[in-house]
Amino acid sequence: MIERLAVIGVGLIGGSLARALRAADAVGEVIGCGRSLENLKLALELGVIDDYVLEPGDAVADADMVFIAVPLGAIAGVFAKIKGRLPARAVVTDGGSVKGSVVSDARRVFGGNVPSWLVPGHPIAGTERSGVGSSFPDLYQNRRVILTPVPETDPGAVARVRAMWEQVGSEVTEMSVEHHDEVLAATSHLPHMLAFGLVDALARMRSNDEIFRYAAGGFRDFTRIASSSPEMWRDICLANAEALSGMLSRFGDEMNELSNTIRSADADALLSIFERARAARERYVDGLEPSTGAD
Amino acid sequence: MIERLAVIGVGLIGGSLARALRAADAVGEVIGCGRSLENLKLALELGVIDDYVLEPGDAVADADMVFIAVPLGAIAGVFAKIKGRLPARAVVTDGGSVKGSVVSDARRVFGGNVPSWLVPGHPIAGTERSGVGSSFPDLYQNRRVILTPVPETDPGAVARVRAMWEQVGSEVTEMSVEHHDEVLAATSHLPHMLAFGLVDALARMRSNDEIFRYAAGGFRDFTRIASSSPEMWRDICLANAEALSGMLSRFGDEMNELSNTIRSADADALLSIFERARAARERYVDGLEPSTGAD
Ligand SMILES: NC(=O)c1ccc[n+]([C@@H]2O[C@H](COP(=O)([O-])OP(=O)(O)OC[C@H]3O[C@@H](n4cnc5c(N)ncnc54)[C@H](OP(=O)(O)O)[C@@H]3O)[C@@H](O)[C@H]2O)c1
Ligand SMILES: NC(=O)c1ccc[n+]([C@@H]2O[C@H](COP(=O)([O-])OP(=O)(O)OC[C@H]3O[C@@H](n4cnc5c(N)ncnc54)[C@H](OP(=O)(O)O)[C@@H]3O)[C@@H](O)[C@H]2O)c1
Repeated sequence: MIERLAVIGVGLIGGSLARALRAADAVGEVIGCGRSLENLKLALELGVIDDYVLEPGDAVADADMVFIAVPLGAIAGVFAKIKGRLPARAVVTDGGSVKGSVVSDARRVFGGNVPSWLVPGHPIAGTERSGVGSSFPDLYQNRRVILTPVPETDPGAVARVRAMWEQVGSEVTEMSVEHHDEVLAATSHLPHMLAFGLVDALARMRSNDEIFRYAAGGFRDFTRIASSSPEMWRDICLANAEALSGMLSRFGDEMNELSNTIRSADADALLSIFERARAARERYVDGLEPSTGAD
Repeated sequence: MIERLAVIGVGLIGGSLARALRAADAVGEVIGCGRSLENLKLALELGVIDDYVLEPGDAVADADMVFIAVPLGAIAGVFAKIKGRLPARAVVTDGGSVKGSVVSDARRVFGGNVPSWLVPGHPIAGTERSGVGSSFPDLYQNRRVILTPVPETDPGAVARVRAMWEQVGSEVTEMSVEHHDEVLAATSHLPHMLAFGLVDALARMRSNDEIFRYAAGGFRDFTRIASSSPEMWRDICLANAEALSGMLSRFGDEMNELSNTIRSADADALLSIFERARAARERYVDGLEPSTGAD
């Protein structure tokens, strides 16, 4: 049982965790903290939080659990503001989509070492909408959460964060920071770049009005993720630049190769690419449970 | 009212048209024709057709409307077999996903000119499944059908084909063969190549098992279209090679550029790409009605 949870960034991710812990009767009091009064007032009205403050340092002062769910570019600033303000029993975790940048922000702000009470984490759950108004208590039900503890991390802190996520229905796994960022570059960041890139490419074509008119259902599903928050994706690109840019340029080269295969009318090569993809897609993806989450 | 409809290729597309016309009470008798007895027997059992024959020439002999819905690579063969066997009142249309290849097949088989009774067409509807077992009467409801008549085409034939599609709930538009193949390369063929390419790229990564395990919901939607028929997509690539390979290599170059933008940490450039894409996606795609069709 968490006595006092501080949520820094009460948006889709932070708001949904607060709602889920309340629904599971796993939290006493929830204190919200954020940038704009407007969003915090809405969170209070919606019953997502019990109270709010505008200073992260004040928010964490009496907390036993802290969840940081601001955009990746704002995490270092939150670290700087909570520095020296945490009670001894407090554990801090975050929901950032990239872990390497969070860990290096922590090293920078806290003087070389990652504090033992910080458990970097990432719920593989989300939608293409933002803000506390889009948050809902079931977001994490049957979803995976990845924790990426570093050598300095206290195993007791990891256990408390794991227990929190399990109480809202998630399956928790641990992996290294580098591995997390590689895997997510492939499964989430690259697909989002393709969706953004495709929509952008089509929007720039002559007669793009007509082009979108003839887009079929498959296209709509494919590009739904292109309505995700531009700021969030800018931050993800900057934070996971190395893994993502590598994959993206490899993918670009492969599309150029596929273009050549089509141009040279190599029917057998085309068939085997499509068969391999279909088999892989069916083997892996159809084994997962249905879901609608992005990121 | 169609008296006798011949469907050559009673799969998803051909079977669904037969079912839809029956449901609309817009057809007398439906005669099926195909490659395998097995599929035709199933079509008969399911009540999709009233009878079947194995020779396209026999199927069309008494028909007033003929719908060719075989893979693109088999269309020339069907033309050769119906040559000289059509009654004078018959109109022929097809459902092939590329129109340039159908028209050039026709010119080749029928001696230079496209016959006046041939109305090349393409329903923008489908799913990622194949075969008559996947066909259903509502497939064309509220979907678009594109007809691409050529100068030789009889306007009366176009009118009859248009009326048929309208009776099953479709909205019919006309455009040139070249324009159709360009628009579809952008809205359907390119997205399918990206989905096939993404799944194939991920399947070839080290630890691909794990990669697919962490794939989130957005990824599943994105790649659903990668389980479409490999043979159909091979044929589409070969038939629309020029438009598609051009777009694909341009897209490949753009992904390489985006990779460089990420590597050089150009935050403003990234934000404006993602904002442009989100705005375009919302403006165009959310204006369409929901659907689940591929292709
Ligand atoms: N969306 C997804 O699919 C998803 C999935 C997994 C992980 N994540 C990660 O979760 C985090 C939050 O994403 P989200 O989707 O919940 O975004 P969101 O709905 O936009 O919420 C972000 C919240 O952070 C606040 N905020 C922004 N800048 C801040 C700052 N400098 N200081 C304090 N608060 C600030 C915002 O306040 P205002 O409302 O006042 O601007 C907002 O309430 C990101 O790190 C993202 O990478 C997202
Ligand atoms: N699927 C889509 O999303 C979609 C959408 C719009 C247009 N199209 C176009 O519609 C056409 C049919 O696609 P589909 O999805 O309906 O495929 P499908 O479900 O596989 O049906 C194709 C049918 O054609 C028959 N066939 C194959 N080769 C033949 C041949 N040489 N002679 C006679 N019959 C033959 C098959 O018979 P067997 O069962 O005996 O093999 C099968 O019944 C294609 O040209 C495709 O480009 C497809």
